[in-house]
Amino acid sequence: MRAVRLHDYHKPPVVEDVPEPTLSGPLDVIVKIGGAGVCRTDLHIIEGQWAEAMGPELPYTIGHENAGWVEEVGAGVTNVAPGDTVILHPQPSCGLCRACRAGKDMQCSNAFFPGLSNNDGGMAEYLRTSARACVKLNPETKPSDVAALADAGITAYHAVRKAVPLLYPGTTAVVQGAGGLGHIGIQCLAALTATRIVVVDRNPDALALAKQIGADETVQADGNQVEAVKELTGGEGANVVFDFVAEGGAENDAWQMTGPDGSQFMIGYGGEVKIPTLDFIAAEKNIIGNIVGTYNDLAELMVLAQAGKVTLHTKTYPLDSAVEALDDLDNGRVRGRAILVP
Amino acid sequence: MRAVRLHDYHKPPVVEDVPEPTLSGPLDVIVKIGGAGVCRTDLHIIEGQWAEAMGPELPYTIGHENAGWVEEVGAGVTNVAPGDTVILHPQPSCGLCRACRAGKDMQCSNAFFPGLSNNDGGMAEYLRTSARACVKLNPETKPSDVAALADAGITAYHAVRKAVPLLYPGTTAVVQGAGGLGHIGIQCLAALTATRIVVVDRNPDALALAKQIGADETVQADGNQVEAVKELTGGEGANVVFDFVAEGGAENDAWQMTGPDGSQFMIGYGGEVKIPTLDFIAAEKNIIGNIVGTYNDLAELMVLAQAGKVTLHTKTYPLDSAVEALDDLDNGRVRGRAILVP
Amino acid sequence: MRAVRLHDYHKPPVVEDVPEPTLSGPLDVIVKIGGAGVCRTDLHIIEGQWAEAMGPELPYTIGHENAGWVEEVGAGVTNVAPGDTVILHPQPSCGLCRACRAGKDMQCSNAFFPGLSNNDGGMAEYLRTSARACVKLNPETKPSDVAALADAGITAYHAVRKAVPLLYPGTTAVVQGAGGLGHIGIQCLAALTATRIVVVDRNPDALALAKQIGADETVQADGNQVEAVKELTGGEGANVVFDFVAEGGAENDAWQMTGPDGSQFMIGYGGEVKIPTLDFIAAEKNIIGNIVGTYNDLAELMVLAQAGKVTLHTKTYPLDSAVEALDDLDNGRVRGRAILVP
Amino acid sequence: MRAVRLHDYHKPPVVEDVPEPTLSGPLDVIVKIGGAGVCRTDLHIIEGQWAEAMGPELPYTIGHENAGWVEEVGAGVTNVAPGDTVILHPQPSCGLCRACRAGKDMQCSNAFFPGLSNNDGGMAEYLRTSARACVKLNPETKPSDVAALADAGITAYHAVRKAVPLLYPGTTAVVQGAGGLGHIGIQCLAALTATRIVVVDRNPDALALAKQIGADETVQADGNQVEAVKELTGGEGANVVFDFVAEGGAENDAWQMTGPDGSQFMIGYGGEVKIPTLDFIAAEKNIIGNIVGTYNDLAELMVLAQAGKVTLHTKTYPLDSAVEALDDLDNGRVRGRAILVP
Repeated sequence: MRAVRLHDYHKPPVVEDVPEPTLSGPLDVIVKIGGAGVCRTDLHIIEGQWAEAMGPELPYTIGHENAGWVEEVGAGVTNVAPGDTVILHPQPSCGLCRACRAGKDMQCSNAFFPGLSNNDGGMAEYLRTSARACVKLNPETKPSDVAALADAGITAYHAVRKAVPLLYPGTTAVVQGAGGLGHIGIQCLAALTATRIVVVDRNPDALALAKQIGADETVQADGNQVEAVKELTGGEGANVVFDFVAEGGAENDAWQMTGPDGSQFMIGYGGEVKIPTLDFIAAEKNIIGNIVGTYNDLAELMVLAQAGKVTLHTKTYPLDSAVEALDDLDNGRVRGRAILVP
Repeated sequence: MRAVRLHDYHKPPVVEDVPEPTLSGPLDVIVKIGGAGVCRTDLHIIEGQWAEAMGPELPYTIGHENAGWVEEVGAGVTNVAPGDTVILHPQPSCGLCRACRAGKDMQCSNAFFPGLSNNDGGMAEYLRTSARACVKLNPETKPSDVAALADAGITAYHAVRKAVPLLYPGTTAVVQGAGGLGHIGIQCLAALTATRIVVVDRNPDALALAKQIGADETVQADGNQVEAVKELTGGEGANVVFDFVAEGGAENDAWQMTGPDGSQFMIGYGGEVKIPTLDFIAAEKNIIGNIVGTYNDLAELMVLAQAGKVTLHTKTYPLDSAVEALDDLDNGRVRGRAILVP
Repeated sequence: MRAVRLHDYHKPPVVEDVPEPTLSGPLDVIVKIGGAGVCRTDLHIIEGQWAEAMGPELPYTIGHENAGWVEEVGAGVTNVAPGDTVILHPQPSCGLCRACRAGKDMQCSNAFFPGLSNNDGGMAEYLRTSARACVKLNPETKPSDVAALADAGITAYHAVRKAVPLLYPGTTAVVQGAGGLGHIGIQCLAALTATRIVVVDRNPDALALAKQIGADETVQADGNQVEAVKELTGGEGANVVFDFVAEGGAENDAWQMTGPDGSQFMIGYGGEVKIPTLDFIAAEKNIIGNIVGTYNDLAELMVLAQAGKVTLHTKTYPLDSAVEALDDLDNGRVRGRAILVP
Repeated sequence: MRAVRLHDYHKPPVVEDVPEPTLSGPLDVIVKIGGAGVCRTDLHIIEGQWAEAMGPELPYTIGHENAGWVEEVGAGVTNVAPGDTVILHPQPSCGLCRACRAGKDMQCSNAFFPGLSNNDGGMAEYLRTSARACVKLNPETKPSDVAALADAGITAYHAVRKAVPLLYPGTTAVVQGAGGLGHIGIQCLAALTATRIVVVDRNPDALALAKQIGADETVQADGNQVEAVKELTGGEGANVVFDFVAEGGAENDAWQMTGPDGSQFMIGYGGEVKIPTLDFIAAEKNIIGNIVGTYNDLAELMVLAQAGKVTLHTKTYPLDSAVEALDDLDNGRVRGRAILVP
């Protein structure tokens, strides 16, 4: 089959022929890929930024945002069957450790991350994953329409879902960063809460789109965004600030935008917070970490997606054009999400 | 191996030789039994009360409160290894359905119940269960000391654990029924909360023991128990009433003992509640159902048991004396819990 | 001033002149009434059904769904000032008892209920209430548009708000009874959750309106409604059933419509539940009582109302036509809610 | 009456005669002081560190940890009466703002802080406070025994209470800093949870005492405390780290001691956290701010204190020896808490 393989860091991956994956364990599932999202993380993988943390042996197949159809299942698989349309949780979990038993898939002691850790990913015709990664979709759902929700989507949904109890009517939520994740976050907030949604971004086009998909207010990040948010919140700051940027100083802006008894939900990364401990105490404020999401988060997000409540603009490329897609992403030529279709 | 087999309803089971169980699926685990609790449910099984609901083919091996040592594991098992001391969740869950993915083992769509449903139980030398049922214990833990916590214990713990947020200092919890489950419930309440514990029972000996293990107040159920509880709670009733009886009118007493904004936690069964809907509304009261518990509930209870915070009086019998043990239980000759030791 | 006074049970109230109320305590507030809802409870008061429970001295002024403008405030009042537009929580709470300190206004040890308990209500030109009952509105809000939300609205909102954590995407909520409260409940569910909303009612017109305001599915209560709900939920039943009827057998239907791990939220009253305790246990189901709501519930509902997310069809009558309005309500001639405007 | 008055910053306060306070508002309460705690914050007040933030007019009476007996009450006071033994929440709240209506006293929009803000405190024979500050005690409780719980105690209790849902059996909680607050925190943890308690401090005497009051493990802060905590937690870190120090680098140690999916509860202050945003994300970790506590927190803590579950070593001084008491505190000559008794 064809697959997008990384042979050397700092060089473009190669689209080449490799053997199809085969079942190796009782919970294994072989999925025929219908769509594989191209993500900024793929660029970071190529640049070697994940080499040390994940340690994959090169060459290997990248691609961690995958959806398709079940091709073959292991002896212990009961939740999906060949022919089922599925989207794949990016990090299959073991189902046996204490974290898994509490539904906390991301804290699984034995998880792996195909396309990122030492396991082939989904920029290929077929992928081997686990039954515990498979969320069954309506047969009519097109995998290429939803693939990008497998990682970007679940991450935004997870953070919003955790914040729901804090966002009753009369509260204000700030979404800092209206890019791919942020746009999904805005739609999730509009679907799950009646909070006022304030979106902060540098890009006027992103703000215009934000307005169409649920933002009540938009603030251009022109250096006065902290003041602007304070003004919109009676001088206090917001109840929750979803920080999809979290670098370049935005992480400290987000803290300033967070009001008393409020929480900064960290989703992006790259920067560093510097906060006097008195600031946490004086106004009883919190910082909440967020990473991807649970299996059930993805399943719930698929309910929203299949009901048309969360949508994503996509641009499809044939699998053999993977390098072009990566290049377009790297050069800002993709609006929404690039999807490889084998 | 020797096993306690039910051949006909309404007749005592037979201890006889049967083949040892073998691995049949990738998550299967064979456990060498170290202790199997004898439970009132076993008497009900023999009387045929579960025949229709569970539909086991006779003959089969009973016993659903089991602990022992892992003997052999299937290809997909990673959480336990031969030699490990384990206690077994009574209802192995699939790990793939939505309920399992939320940690709600008892709501699993594909669960079975060895010794109750059409699967051999643990009153035998060996039992086949699933990796998802195995909670690993300290090597020095004696299976016969903890086996009875596998069903009676987890059930009491689960209800108490759910009620913890309601039982802050200054509240009152009533435990109605200080038998096997109730005694564990009292110890769990004392370990997990600082609530005032009021125990209600007909039996003065049970109340005396209750005092030793954590009860702050005891009330003899002599017909005035509702009034007695009201008096102890300023005329209001308790915040939570754990109803371990739930039959013979106790279920309606429990409701009367429950104060405004309070909850009756139903754990026993057999009776019928008859309550005007106005009663739920007027004082904003609830009835909360409870059934066994999650895998993590059992794991947490084992932390308490191994720390000596929850203990159980037991009387051991050789496996071949199973009929005698059942007979002793049926005739009120067992204090604490009867345990079969192969 | 003019006021609607009940002189004798079983006789229509009389609209007559009485002295205006005056401040009597430091937290008192005199409100100039802009709208007073006419509620089925007023009919029950006239019929003497609340005589024993509430014990008002006759004659007194009825009316417990009130909104208007602040006229005068006591020395200790800091949250509203003369001229403010306000809606009034129906049961002012003391602010000093333990329940009040936890925000549980309905569990206040010292509450009263103007128009129901021994205190004059709001079917009059002026009403005396407490600062703790006053929720400030935008100056442009018309009291007569929102008055009915003061009791019917807060009650529906409170129940929905409590259920939000149970109603994530993929769940099903049943609203049984699409009358005044039910219609508000549907709108609150649509505003606060992404659950699937199934509405059950005998009246096809009520179901048609339900569809317009947020119902995903409607079921006519023709005797097969339990089966119809089961069919819509894969044979399981719903996650939450909001029972706005709770009498005439509907209370037991609601229980049958409630699925495993699910909850029946009791809001209506009049009937009696008869449920084997085994039913609570076997599927771990709950019944949750609900009564009116908190001050903050009303404040949050006002955010939704002022944003147009919860609306109510009203028919206004001059205060002097109170008896006609009560008569219209009693004879089913009011669609939505009758509002008296002094 | 005698009172401890601050006339000039950087000079010892003066014990002198001043007029007794009188009722000025309907919710005012005059309390005859039975004990006033001497707190490190009082030293900071004298040093002028709170001058800008709180802006009191000098001279004024200090003392913010107060208990005694009700002397006189305003017209609107219903929760206490002259003669009642009371402990006083340090920050009376208004009862009318949205935060108060949710039970969040510390977020009250109209709060004041006697002895700290521009209001006379309790190092005097009498204090004026509000009904909303008064928690009624058993008549036999000695105010001087509990006074120090009014601020130090409530603060420790509040943080522990918030963490209870995270601290089920099998978890580990670290208490960093076993001084006055830390010792109360340890006792609260032992009373409210069955978590394993690991205490970290530089002082071996504090650790020895910690062992007596509930610590399961102690770690001397000798530079290797992070590694020691990791070793005690299987290399992972703790579920919750209560940071009672939060300065001098301890705040960053606490973060390192916090395991995946864990939370650092900030209670102390003075330092500054410097954390890469990736660290919050990668292991889904949180920082939770904490400030004093609610009225109900104090009421619950009093249940523990009056049951002997939380105790405090105290050293009493006559009111006229206030300067000596402050001096002893400043020079490390007080074990436990210094209490002024008028």
